[in-house]
Amino acid sequence: MSFNTFGNILKITTFGESHGAMLGVVIDGLQSNFPIDTAFIQKQLDRRRPGFSINSTSRKESDTFEIVSGFFNGKTTGTPLTIVFHNNDQHSNDYEKIKDYARPGHADLAYQVRYKNRDYRGGGRSSGRETVCRVAAGAIAMQILSSQSITISSKIISIKGKKNLSEKEYEQLIQTYKGQGESLGGRIQVEAENIPIGLGEPVFDKLDALISHAIMSIGAVKGIEFGSGFASENLLGSENNKIGHSGGISGGLSDGEKLHFEVAVKPTPSVSVVQQFTDLKDLKSKKTLSITGRHDPCICYRILPVLESMTALVLLDCLYAVNGRKPGEN
Amino acid sequence: MSFNTFGNILKITTFGESHGAMLGVVIDGLQSNFPIDTAFIQKQLDRRRPGFSINSTSRKESDTFEIVSGFFNGKTTGTPLTIVFHNNDQHSNDYEKIKDYARPGHADLAYQVRYKNRDYRGGGRSSGRETVCRVAAGAIAMQILSSQSITISSKIISIKGKKNLSEKEYEQLIQTYKGQGESLGGRIQVEAENIPIGLGEPVFDKLDALISHAIMSIGAVKGIEFGSGFASENLLGSENNKIGHSGGISGGLSDGEKLHFEVAVKPTPSVSVVQQFTDLKDLKSKKTLSITGRHDPCICYRILPVLESMTALVLLDCLYAVNGRKPGEN
Amino acid sequence: MSFNTFGNILKITTFGESHGAMLGVVIDGLQSNFPIDTAFIQKQLDRRRPGFSINSTSRKESDTFEIVSGFFNGKTTGTPLTIVFHNNDQHSNDYEKIKDYARPGHADLAYQVRYKNRDYRGGGRSSGRETVCRVAAGAIAMQILSSQSITISSKIISIKGKKNLSEKEYEQLIQTYKGQGESLGGRIQVEAENIPIGLGEPVFDKLDALISHAIMSIGAVKGIEFGSGFASENLLGSENNKIGHSGGISGGLSDGEKLHFEVAVKPTPSVSVVQQFTDLKDLKSKKTLSITGRHDPCICYRILPVLESMTALVLLDCLYAVNGRKPGEN
Amino acid sequence: MSFNTFGNILKITTFGESHGAMLGVVIDGLQSNFPIDTAFIQKQLDRRRPGFSINSTSRKESDTFEIVSGFFNGKTTGTPLTIVFHNNDQHSNDYEKIKDYARPGHADLAYQVRYKNRDYRGGGRSSGRETVCRVAAGAIAMQILSSQSITISSKIISIKGKKNLSEKEYEQLIQTYKGQGESLGGRIQVEAENIPIGLGEPVFDKLDALISHAIMSIGAVKGIEFGSGFASENLLGSENNKIGHSGGISGGLSDGEKLHFEVAVKPTPSVSVVQQFTDLKDLKSKKTLSITGRHDPCICYRILPVLESMTALVLLDCLYAVNGRKPGEN
Repeated sequence: MSFNTFGNILKITTFGESHGAMLGVVIDGLQSNFPIDTAFIQKQLDRRRPGFSINSTSRKESDTFEIVSGFFNGKTTGTPLTIVFHNNDQHSNDYEKIKDYARPGHADLAYQVRYKNRDYRGGGRSSGRETVCRVAAGAIAMQILSSQSITISSKIISIKGKKNLSEKEYEQLIQTYKGQGESLGGRIQVEAENIPIGLGEPVFDKLDALISHAIMSIGAVKGIEFGSGFASENLLGSENNKIGHSGGISGGLSDGEKLHFEVAVKPTPSVSVVQQFTDLKDLKSKKTLSITGRHDPCICYRILPVLESMTALVLLDCLYAVNGRKPGEN
Repeated sequence: MSFNTFGNILKITTFGESHGAMLGVVIDGLQSNFPIDTAFIQKQLDRRRPGFSINSTSRKESDTFEIVSGFFNGKTTGTPLTIVFHNNDQHSNDYEKIKDYARPGHADLAYQVRYKNRDYRGGGRSSGRETVCRVAAGAIAMQILSSQSITISSKIISIKGKKNLSEKEYEQLIQTYKGQGESLGGRIQVEAENIPIGLGEPVFDKLDALISHAIMSIGAVKGIEFGSGFASENLLGSENNKIGHSGGISGGLSDGEKLHFEVAVKPTPSVSVVQQFTDLKDLKSKKTLSITGRHDPCICYRILPVLESMTALVLLDCLYAVNGRKPGEN
Repeated sequence: MSFNTFGNILKITTFGESHGAMLGVVIDGLQSNFPIDTAFIQKQLDRRRPGFSINSTSRKESDTFEIVSGFFNGKTTGTPLTIVFHNNDQHSNDYEKIKDYARPGHADLAYQVRYKNRDYRGGGRSSGRETVCRVAAGAIAMQILSSQSITISSKIISIKGKKNLSEKEYEQLIQTYKGQGESLGGRIQVEAENIPIGLGEPVFDKLDALISHAIMSIGAVKGIEFGSGFASENLLGSENNKIGHSGGISGGLSDGEKLHFEVAVKPTPSVSVVQQFTDLKDLKSKKTLSITGRHDPCICYRILPVLESMTALVLLDCLYAVNGRKPGEN
Repeated sequence: MSFNTFGNILKITTFGESHGAMLGVVIDGLQSNFPIDTAFIQKQLDRRRPGFSINSTSRKESDTFEIVSGFFNGKTTGTPLTIVFHNNDQHSNDYEKIKDYARPGHADLAYQVRYKNRDYRGGGRSSGRETVCRVAAGAIAMQILSSQSITISSKIISIKGKKNLSEKEYEQLIQTYKGQGESLGGRIQVEAENIPIGLGEPVFDKLDALISHAIMSIGAVKGIEFGSGFASENLLGSENNKIGHSGGISGGLSDGEKLHFEVAVKPTPSVSVVQQFTDLKDLKSKKTLSITGRHDPCICYRILPVLESMTALVLLDCLYAVNGRKPGEN
């Protein structure tokens, strides 16, 4: 496996499996002397944590983080800032009985063919747990952006096609299907304000191309659209040229409008109903099995800070490309 | 401007403006000793060329290419293979009257703010003409993939929301709006078959993330979705886990199913109706102007080989990451 | 600070300061299913450890390592293999009295100007302690190379200009100067055998260019020469073309001869004699001070595994570029 | 072949063979709105040109350049600035008789093994002609550096071990050996002044590591040393810490002293005396042959602008990493 690093000037490298000793993220390229509010990192991690709301899995993951480098006397030093998460509460035996079978909708089969080997305990690198690293790194990027008045927010547009329900109604919907061993997907909106005009690079690293790369690298995401997106074909050129349709990006550069994009989140593949698993020792053979353990019936809530974080990392990287990374004052 | 290079192991670098001396693409990382069918390159370029069908602009662009390096006695040498396109038939004076005004829906404003300078003749690097480079490079990648049985195809799903019309009916639709000085968008499907299981990298360079980056870096594209995409929220987890919904990618790796994604193409912003342009010397001031010259009323046909090419470049890059680049036999 | 990652396909990212919680290295791009001999990693680390021989500092660094990801049932999984070193035995107060002064021959002044901030406890990232990460990663690369019969070795050519002394005589020489609070430099030779012909990339990433980058990135190294090197000007072209002068690299590619290069190691700048320090609050002002604490009088012995490791990482990266990274068999 | 791109933020990509249609360089990442003095580019190219002084080959290479993109109204636009060199005066038949034999001291053998194919006309990518691209790009970087008072210079220290001869005496020396069909090497010094303190990145991309990579990627260079270099072992630590020994780099960052390094240039391998060539169809068989055509007896003069250029490209890249790339004013 390669390419566990993301970014051009501000780079994050993540490592670790859900059932190994620790996961972590190395953030390389941060400006020095920036004061970090560690409570905000924890706050974003708490939004991502399973068990935080009734909508999520009842696992109790240890999402307390430790900054082990690049941070001294409350500020970034400019050296690689590394955050680690020590694992515990690992129910490896939940995975033992299915270790020779590929779960439908998962990467199990592809991993086995590609690597001829996998850490079957919880998905290894394809586990959603990897996103703790992204959220912690993103929480730092969000603080630096915020010091320049750039803010990022996200919200749920729909779950299982139902729009504009209250949080309570969404919870009820999720609980109903959870009871049936099923999972639900939805649609999420991300917005960012006060982005200076001209961020992004005009050809291959257009701002929308970079954000798409970042967002589509999150496991459950199956689509992304900017501004009027797929609906733009319902407009004529002169209509689509008007304010509000670009999603804040024209010709690949931020254009001064609010950044706006929407994301398709699929129903999580870990469902407890019985399904056909592929026998990894004989790829043509199937077996009827079910996934046990605690899993998310709907990750639409938990994914919000992950989406915000990946957006923040792209925006800060693009800012650095234009402005460099002058140290903060002492 | 930076980052005019795309790819990890197989890298393409494009250069040139629509109204400069030439455009070109340097393809770095190709295996040596692969025989190239230059007629196929021209065939793909002809599909992209304006004026090829009545649906496109009536400009006569010179899309004859010259391979100037990396190619000897009909085969790749393994050195950077460079293809150039000499420009001619440039109607620079079409642009003279609007050089101090930013066209709506274009990158003009963002370029001016970012670079304080732009080649106003035809959009510079943000011109669609840059895609000749991608198509030529992609045509080579498609030949190498084809030698391993991997095929890529694309087709129009809808234009202005109308699905499944015949080519003749689409042409009529486009001509009608062209007469009004307007442009149309649409939806396109791309598919690839016989991709080996396990391509892509599991975390940041998931196959769908790489393809999204590549496809969203094409000017007119505003959205992308894989498999059941945005519609996946209408399915339960167990339903979405079934064959046909993944789009051929699970957990970021190719999973043995057919690769399938769909793309939103916006109506081209170059329309001839009068619009409000931003005065580049006073960003708060507007002026009523119209874009003259020959422009595409709908690029859905022309964009097909560009989409296929960017897909091919990603797939070949991922193949090289696994298999290396052994030279062909003499 | 940026660019804490080295390599094209096989990449290592190091993090951590000498006086923080931990240092570590993320090795991204390893082939899967390769069995690792962890004892060999420790053996190489022991060669690098201060206090191992009387030639080195008497500090007792904890060089026990922990593999925290990418390793399962004794084999690489193909995911990022991460090795961490927990710090202890940190004498931070040795540094307290000189925290406002830049040590001569160190990066202190440049760090302060660049970052306006530094972790003054022991040099931060510029500490030689960072090389534990390189040695651990290199020990894995050496095992993979060794499985393909490629071996790497290094030896001391001279210390303080004295060639071919016995180990005992070198130790005496070092002890003498250590007693005076001084340090010594030397010259080291690195060789590698059985490298397949054709490794390296012919233009910017010539094998000698990559090795020079890798080796010169080690703090104490001030020069490198391949084959007949600086002495080649004493030969005529036809003489220099003969076997034995190329150092194993012709035109940037391995040419089938033994890889041979030599390295200049400067006397370590941490000496305990009094010197003129620069006042970091007034760069034109000097103060007479001395560095206390335990420091290496000569790092020529300790640097050997670091040189071997960086060489191994370059060679394996180049091998992967040609051959890809097929998983080992189960 | 891969990795024909050099640089982190300012990247150059070169392409083209000595006997193809053209060579070129794409310079990606330049700041916009910088006025270029094209006469200075030609001046640097003329210093590199064979036939310029009697010391060089009598070939008449066409070193007139054409800027084909990224340049408008005398200034950089911020888009990729591309410079091409059209080839002519190609004596391909000089190479015909040796096309099945590997010249000693050249990359011919390694190319054939690696790529199973090579453009035998003049060395292909390993030809020294590729350096026209580096000189043109470097001439632009030197102008931008110069606008910030940073100057770069180089001079010959010795040829064939003879130091401090006059230019006339060096010419005589070279002519003597040229008459015998031989070639000579030498030692060159490069210096740069007014570099701001703190350039470079402290770990893998130390300023000396980047410069070594850049300089060792030039074909004829076999060694590099900074400051007191290999001679530093003759000094004690406290002596070597004094001003003048660091070469302007401490801990990998520029330290405010003058940048100083020296380079070993080997005698060019193209000599006309008879030598043993390797039969490419039977690698164990040798044949006595000689290289005909016009070749350089000593490239020490011609390599000066190449060394300056690679140094300039590294320094500007490092400057951009700290300061970003703000556009020039209109």
